[in-house]
Amino acid sequence: MRDTVQRMDTFFDPKSVAVVGASKNVNKAGHVIFKNFAENKRRGVFNGELYPVNLTEDHILGYKSYPSISRIPGQVELVVIVVPALSVLDIMKEAAAKDVSAVVIISAGFSEIGNEKLEKTIVSVAEEANIRVLGPNCLGVYDNRTGVDMLFLPETKVLTTGDEFVATPRPMSGHIAMITQSGAFGAAALDYLAGSQLGVSKFVSFGNKCDVAEAEMLEYFLLDGETWVILLYAEAIEAGREFMKAAEKVTRKKPIVAFKSGKSGAGARAAASHTGAIAGSDRIYEAAFAQVGIVRVRDMEEFFDVGKALAFQPPATGNNIGILTDAGGPSVMAVDECEARGLTVNKFSDSVLDEFEELKKGGKLPRFATNLNPVDITGSATSEMFELSAKIMLDTPEVDGLIVLGLHHTPALQEDFVDRIASLVKQCAKPVVACDIGETEMAMFIRSRFEKLGIPAYTSPEDAARAMAALAQYGKHLKKTGCFNEFLEICVRRHGLRP
Amino acid sequence: MRDTVQRMDTFFDPKSVAVVGASKNVNKAGHVIFKNFAENKRRGVFNGELYPVNLTEDHILGYKSYPSISRIPGQVELVVIVVPALSVLDIMKEAAAKDVSAVVIISAGFSEIGNEKLEKTIVSVAEEANIRVLGPNCLGVYDNRTGVDMLFLPETKVLTTGDEFVATPRPMSGHIAMITQSGAFGAAALDYLAGSQLGVSKFVSFGNKCDVAEAEMLEYFLLDGETWVILLYAEAIEAGREFMKAAEKVTRKKPIVAFKSGKSGAGARAAASHTGAIAGSDRIYEAAFAQVGIVRVRDMEEFFDVGKALAFQPPATGNNIGILTDAGGPSVMAVDECEARGLTVNKFSDSVLDEFEELKKGGKLPRFATNLNPVDITGSATSEMFELSAKIMLDTPEVDGLIVLGLHHTPALQEDFVDRIASLVKQCAKPVVACDIGETEMAMFIRSRFEKLGIPAYTSPEDAARAMAALAQYGKHLKKTGCFNEFLEICVRRHGLRP
Repeated sequence: MRDTVQRMDTFFDPKSVAVVGASKNVNKAGHVIFKNFAENKRRGVFNGELYPVNLTEDHILGYKSYPSISRIPGQVELVVIVVPALSVLDIMKEAAAKDVSAVVIISAGFSEIGNEKLEKTIVSVAEEANIRVLGPNCLGVYDNRTGVDMLFLPETKVLTTGDEFVATPRPMSGHIAMITQSGAFGAAALDYLAGSQLGVSKFVSFGNKCDVAEAEMLEYFLLDGETWVILLYAEAIEAGREFMKAAEKVTRKKPIVAFKSGKSGAGARAAASHTGAIAGSDRIYEAAFAQVGIVRVRDMEEFFDVGKALAFQPPATGNNIGILTDAGGPSVMAVDECEARGLTVNKFSDSVLDEFEELKKGGKLPRFATNLNPVDITGSATSEMFELSAKIMLDTPEVDGLIVLGLHHTPALQEDFVDRIASLVKQCAKPVVACDIGETEMAMFIRSRFEKLGIPAYTSPEDAARAMAALAQYGKHLKKTGCFNEFLEICVRRHGLRP
Repeated sequence: MRDTVQRMDTFFDPKSVAVVGASKNVNKAGHVIFKNFAENKRRGVFNGELYPVNLTEDHILGYKSYPSISRIPGQVELVVIVVPALSVLDIMKEAAAKDVSAVVIISAGFSEIGNEKLEKTIVSVAEEANIRVLGPNCLGVYDNRTGVDMLFLPETKVLTTGDEFVATPRPMSGHIAMITQSGAFGAAALDYLAGSQLGVSKFVSFGNKCDVAEAEMLEYFLLDGETWVILLYAEAIEAGREFMKAAEKVTRKKPIVAFKSGKSGAGARAAASHTGAIAGSDRIYEAAFAQVGIVRVRDMEEFFDVGKALAFQPPATGNNIGILTDAGGPSVMAVDECEARGLTVNKFSDSVLDEFEELKKGGKLPRFATNLNPVDITGSATSEMFELSAKIMLDTPEVDGLIVLGLHHTPALQEDFVDRIASLVKQCAKPVVACDIGETEMAMFIRSRFEKLGIPAYTSPEDAARAMAALAQYGKHLKKTGCFNEFLEICVRRHGLRP
C-alpha cells in the first residue's frame, strides 16, 4: 500500500520530469505540455527538475534540450512521452536504462486501433525495469497544487477572427478528484468544472490503462487529504477484483461517483473502438458498484451534480426528504424525482404540522401555505418564512435531508433568505441542497450565493432531487459498513458545522 | 371552432382591458400588472383601451381610475382581476352586467385551498353571462407581440444591497408557445427561456382552470402563425376527451411537448394541494399522450431541450442516427442515450464505409479515425474533417438524423466547423442537433453559434440524444397520420432549407 502510494505520487509530484517530444512548434502537443511545466516552474508552483528531450533542438523555452533521456545528467523520476507510437518502445528502453520510476505515454496509436502487441511489449519492458506506466492514449495528469500539467489542450484558442477565447481552462484548486478513461471527456470535464467554479484536487486521464488502472488511483486518492470525493468515468474496468477491493476500502472513507458508459450494445461497440475497452454486461457493473458502495450516475450532468453534492454536504442518515418551496409546480417535480430515486417525501406527523400551524396563527406564514411536505410557503414568501420553515424541517428527526426550492421570482422574497438558510444549515449535520430556476441575473446570483455558503445549488428541481438521492445512498452505505459516524465527524470539521 | 378562437383571442389581443385591483402601491400585484399594460401602451405595443379599477384612487399612472367596472364609460372586452378571492364574485357579477367577454382571475384562494364552492359559483355566473374565464390562481397571459402582460412578478428586483437585478425577464419574441398550470413554474420558465435566448410566441398560465383549459388553448395555438411548437406543463388534465380530441388535431400540424408532473404517489398529493389537481394514474397519461402523438418529457430540462429541437429542426423520417464526433467518450454517452430512447446507431453499410476510407486514403481524415458510426475523427479534428464527414452522413439514406458532438478542445479545430456544418444542414431536410461540453468562453460561443445558425445545441451528449429522440418520435407520429410530407414542407420554408 505505502509503496503503491509512493509510486503513484511520482505521477502527481515528481522530483524530476523529462518531456520526450518537447518542441518549439507551438502547434505540437509536446510544446504545450513542456510549456505548462516550464510556466508552472517559473511561477514557483512546479518545483521539480525539468528536461526537454528533442533530437534536434539545443534549447526549448530557455531549457537546455537533450537528444535522449540517457543524456540527461541528473536523475529522472518521471518521463512524459509525446512522440509517435512507433518510437515509444525505444524511449521506454532508455527510460529503463535510466532507472526511471514512472512513465506517462500521452501518444495514441496502440490497442485502441488494434496495436495490442506494441502495447504489450512496452508493458513488459516497463515491468522488467519496475517502471509504472500511465496511458497510452491519454491526457495524463493535472494537479494545480504541484504544477504538474500534462494537458496538451491549450488554455486559449485564437478564432479565425483573431480573437482569443478561453478553450480548455484549468479549474481552481478544490476537493473533487477525477479519474477518466476518456481524455476528450476529461478535457470537457475540466472546462465544465472550471466554468461551474468547482475546484479540483487532482485529475488523471489514463486512456488505454496498460498498467496503472482504477484500483491504484482509488487507493492513492483515498490518502490524499485534498480529495473529498472521487469522480470516475469508465467505459470498461478490466481488473475487476482489484477494483472491487480498492473501491470497498475507499467508500468507507470517501464517496466514489462512477459514470460507466458503453451500457447499450452500440455504446459498447463505440467504446471498444475508442479505448479498446470490452465493456461487458452492464448489469454486472450495476451490481458490483452497488455492492461496494459506489454511487452510480446515469448521465454526464448527474455526474457533476452528484459530485458537487458529495463534496459540499454530509450524507443523509435516512431516506425521508423534506421539501421547502415557494413554487408549487417545481415542488411536484422534485417529489416525483425523489420517489423515482427511492426517496420518500412523507407527510409530517401531527406535532410537526402543529408547529407550522402555530406559525400561521401568529401571522408568520401565509394562511394558505401547505405544510404537509412539501411545505409550500407560496408566492407570498419572505426570507423570514423560509427561515422559520427551514428551522422546523431541519430540527425534526422526520426529515433526513432538505431540498430548498427557493425560486427568486416571488415579489416579496429578498435574497438574504439564502444566508438565513445557510446559517441554519451550519447548525446541524443534515444534508441540504437547493434549486433556483432561471438563466438570468438573479437566478445565477441565488445559486452562486448558495454555493458560496456551502449549499450545492441546481438549475432544476430534478437535479436537486438526484443530488439528494446520492447523499442518501452514500449515507446508507456508510451505515451498512459501520462508518457513518466517523465520516460524519469528518464532514462536521470540513464544513464547519456546529450540530 | 372559429368562435373558440375568437374568444381565446380576447385573452391575447383585447380591444379594451380593465384591471380590477390596479394600485399605486408598487409592491402590489395590481400595480405591476397595470403598469405592464400602461408601459406597453406608452411604447405603442399594446393598442387597446386601458382602465384601472380601484375603489379609492382618482388616477393611477396618469389613467383616470374607476371605482367599479360598471362606471367605465366605454366597452370592456377583458377584465383582469387582482383582488382578494372573497371580492371576486361581486366583480364577476359586475362584469356580467357590463357585457364583458373574458375575465382573468389572477387571485388565489379558491379550489386549491378547498374553496370549491366559491369557484363554482363564479363559474356559473360567468357561464350565464357568456364570459370565458382564465384562472383563478394563475399568472394569466403574456404576449409580447400585442403587449398583453399580466405577469405580476417584477422584471427586476432590488437586492438588500441596493443593486437592481433582472429577476423575471420577459423573453424575446419567437416561436415557442407555453401553456402552464403552475404559475410559479411559468415564471421560472420565462426566466429560463429568456436567459437561453429562446423566443416565445405566447404564454398562458391558467392555474385552477375553472373554465378555459388545455383543449381550447391548443386549438387556439394551432391557428397561431407565430407558434411552431407548444410546450404544455400540467399536473392534471380533467377534460380528457376534449383534450385528446384537440391534441390529436394539433399534432398533425404542430408538435406538442408535454411535461406531466405528479407522477408519483407523493407527487400527486403535492399537486393536489397546489392546484387542486387530481392527478390520476400516470399510465393513463402515458398511453393517452402516445396515442395522440404528444411528445412526453421526463423532466424540466428535457422539456426545454426538446421544445428547442422541435422549434428549430425538421422531424426525422426514421430511427437510425448518425453520430459525428472528435471526442470518443462523449460519443459513447450519446450512443447509450440514443439506444435507451429507442433510437439505433447502426454500423454503416460497406458503401458508406468506403467513402470514409477514400477520405482516409486521400489524407483528408486521420488514419485512425473510427467510421463505423459513431464517426470519431479524433483529437486531430479540423473544420474540413467535420465538414467532409458530415456531408457523407447527411447524404446517405442510412442516417435519419445527425448528432454532432463538436467538442472545441481539440487543438487544431477552428470554430468555423460550425458554419460549415450549418451550411450543409441547410441543403437537406434531415434533423441535426449539436453538443459542446464546457461552461467557459469557447463552449458557450460554439453552442450559441450553432443555435444562431438554426442548429439546437446542448451541454451534454445525453441532452442532444434526447432532443433527437423527440424529433424521431414526432416524425413517426406524422408518418402514422399521413402528415409527414406536409409538415416537412412547412419546415423547409420556415428554416430556409434547400433539400
